Amino acid sequence: MNNFHLIQTCPNSNARAAELVTSHGLVPTPVFSPVGSQATVKTMTPEELKDIGIAMVMVNTYHLYLRPGIDVIEAMGGLHQFMAWDRAILTDSGGYQIFSLAPLRKVSDQGVIFRSHIDGSQHLITPELAIQFQESLGADIIMVLDECPPSTDTFERVKQGTERTHRWAERCQKSQTRSDQALFAIVQGGVFPELRRKSARFLTSLGFPGYAIGGLSLGEPKALTQAIVEETVALLPENKPRYLMGVGSPEDIVEGVARGIDIFDCALPTRVARNGALFTWQGRYNIRNSAYERREEPIDIDCDCYTCRNFSAAYLHHLFKCEELLAYRLATIHNLRFMNNLMSKIRDAIINGTFNTFRDSFLANYKPTDEKLQLAQKKKWLEAQNHNEIAEN
Amino acid sequence: MNNFHLIQTCPNSNARAAELVTSHGLVPTPVFSPVGSQATVKTMTPEELKDIGIAMVMVNTYHLYLRPGIDVIEAMGGLHQFMAWDRAILTDSGGYQIFSLAPLRKVSDQGVIFRSHIDGSQHLITPELAIQFQESLGADIIMVLDECPPSTDTFERVKQGTERTHRWAERCQKSQTRSDQALFAIVQGGVFPELRRKSARFLTSLGFPGYAIGGLSLGEPKALTQAIVEETVALLPENKPRYLMGVGSPEDIVEGVARGIDIFDCALPTRVARNGALFTWQGRYNIRNSAYERREEPIDIDCDCYTCRNFSAAYLHHLFKCEELLAYRLATIHNLRFMNNLMSKIRDAIINGTFNTFRDSFLANYKPTDEKLQLAQKKKWLEAQNHNEIAEN
Repeated sequence: MNNFHLIQTCPNSNARAAELVTSHGLVPTPVFSPVGSQATVKTMTPEELKDIGIAMVMVNTYHLYLRPGIDVIEAMGGLHQFMAWDRAILTDSGGYQIFSLAPLRKVSDQGVIFRSHIDGSQHLITPELAIQFQESLGADIIMVLDECPPSTDTFERVKQGTERTHRWAERCQKSQTRSDQALFAIVQGGVFPELRRKSARFLTSLGFPGYAIGGLSLGEPKALTQAIVEETVALLPENKPRYLMGVGSPEDIVEGVARGIDIFDCALPTRVARNGALFTWQGRYNIRNSAYERREEPIDIDCDCYTCRNFSAAYLHHLFKCEELLAYRLATIHNLRFMNNLMSKIRDAIINGTFNTFRDSFLANYKPTDEKLQLAQKKKWLEAQNHNEIAEN
Repeated sequence: MNNFHLIQTCPNSNARAAELVTSHGLVPTPVFSPVGSQATVKTMTPEELKDIGIAMVMVNTYHLYLRPGIDVIEAMGGLHQFMAWDRAILTDSGGYQIFSLAPLRKVSDQGVIFRSHIDGSQHLITPELAIQFQESLGADIIMVLDECPPSTDTFERVKQGTERTHRWAERCQKSQTRSDQALFAIVQGGVFPELRRKSARFLTSLGFPGYAIGGLSLGEPKALTQAIVEETVALLPENKPRYLMGVGSPEDIVEGVARGIDIFDCALPTRVARNGALFTWQGRYNIRNSAYERREEPIDIDCDCYTCRNFSAAYLHHLFKCEELLAYRLATIHNLRFMNNLMSKIRDAIINGTFNTFRDSFLANYKPTDEKLQLAQKKKWLEAQNHNEIAEN
């Protein structure tokens, strides 16, 4: 079991600085975990992630289950050894991917029957199997299997899904055999405050070492996401880590921290990097823009990342125009370093009692990507991913 | 002008160890230069290339001329600064690419009119422009513009092309204005020994600081390539570097060294790496093969590259199966380190007077890829490259 020590709480918001002690090192929180779906943070070596300062990566059990197979990774000495990453790892249960990627699925109390998005083969996952798989992988934080309804579902459907999530959480807890992994519960309940409250109350009564908030950031307006986070966090214990799944963008993370979240994971910073969208303290800029063709300065002259210390914006622009593989690496390094610097600034501000000032100043300078555009892009990407991966075989 | 110092010659072959002094560091020879067509050795950062031990990279003027444009690189401080590479660079004149990639071209004594393989736009390159472009880029070794006929051309056509190459070489020599770049001539003459001898005699009479052998390894049998190299090298001055363009595979390099070649460049080691073909001292193996699915050992247990020191063959196999971008990086690192280790072993053997033993032992252990298969793959790749790049726009 991991330990979680609160270091400082913000007097003007719910923000807090803490540390999570895992068997693979200390994770200072608030923390952002990049996503390494298939046991690799796309384009990055473990050394690069360490240089950037990454303390924990998030890996998808669903993807590893399909390729190379849980048994292969177990035979290779577990996930840390397989991907040569000796810092902390967080695995999800597979629930979210099954509900978002798998083309066909049938949910019952037993579990979920789904088809692989790669080859169409049929599989069954149960709460017990989700734990067994994650114990074989050996991550430091593991997750219960949950039912993840679309944000457009009716109250009645979300209620049923949430109740099933609760029954599954109990079964997951009972089937856990390893004591060196922290099993987190996942609060569901869609966009319905009443269901969220019920879910938080039920799950905390079971006593987990950490709590995630799932089923958000799936297309609902940001103001609603934030309201639900507030409602939920208020019912979670102070002394346990809180994890907001699938969030997010720099501005969403700052808002999440202000509401008491400790852990974030999201594919966005690495995904948009490969598309040429680079973070600066003023907002996201696309390096493919012709304005960069002859810019001798780096993307961000004050940035301390490897990319900005060594290359002009013109060179990066050229690599993107030519679709050179180095482009995706250099952009990923920049965005991940930005995220890490953001988390450090947030944490320092909380510890120094200046988080509210930091938050105001950050939000005043950072121009977020238009919300509608962002949602449209995300939808397009999810569809394209689904389509490509199915078409591949 | 660079300096070239012979250190040791082999008593039993024409092999020699030397050093080439450039304004961007010393290049120990025999040397293999990886290809960085578009101002990037695909997937690699300059730091990785240095860790591997690369002393010189080869960059294609034709590609840079089309994207981002010679003027952009000049405005960004030249090629070394643009790609953040402070070691030696070799640029070709563009001749070979024009004759192999450009869909339409018209050669006259003035120069070559060709269409871009990217957008079909029409361009003219003359010997004077080829030098001007390469002076703007600022590589340490630059090449004359040459006519590069297909290996199936008739004696008469090759003779005409070779004579034009000679007239162009004189014009290139006359138009050179920078004294810190070594301009190499290119011996042509196809597969006709008589034309090769004529070409070598004519070009050496003009007095260049180095000589390349062009127009080989283009589909003719290997025995013929080697015979032509022997014929040509015999007529080149002892005290100048000799560069065999577009070669090659490990076995071809060992044979080229034995015939007196000092410099090699080839896209093969990096290109096949991205296809999963990895070099070992026993030959090339494809990591996609299912035999690697559960192999805990690295590709080559004795290899000192970053990939083999950190990752199992099983992990690399998984990355290739999932088409993860990290796969192409890790494979490239391995193959380039193999090439660099090969060149070090060759050079040490020459210096210690054991090159012939090394050569015999290398060739006895290394199983080369079937020649016909290799040619077929190369042809397929060239066609695919042409097709994709045209289709792209």
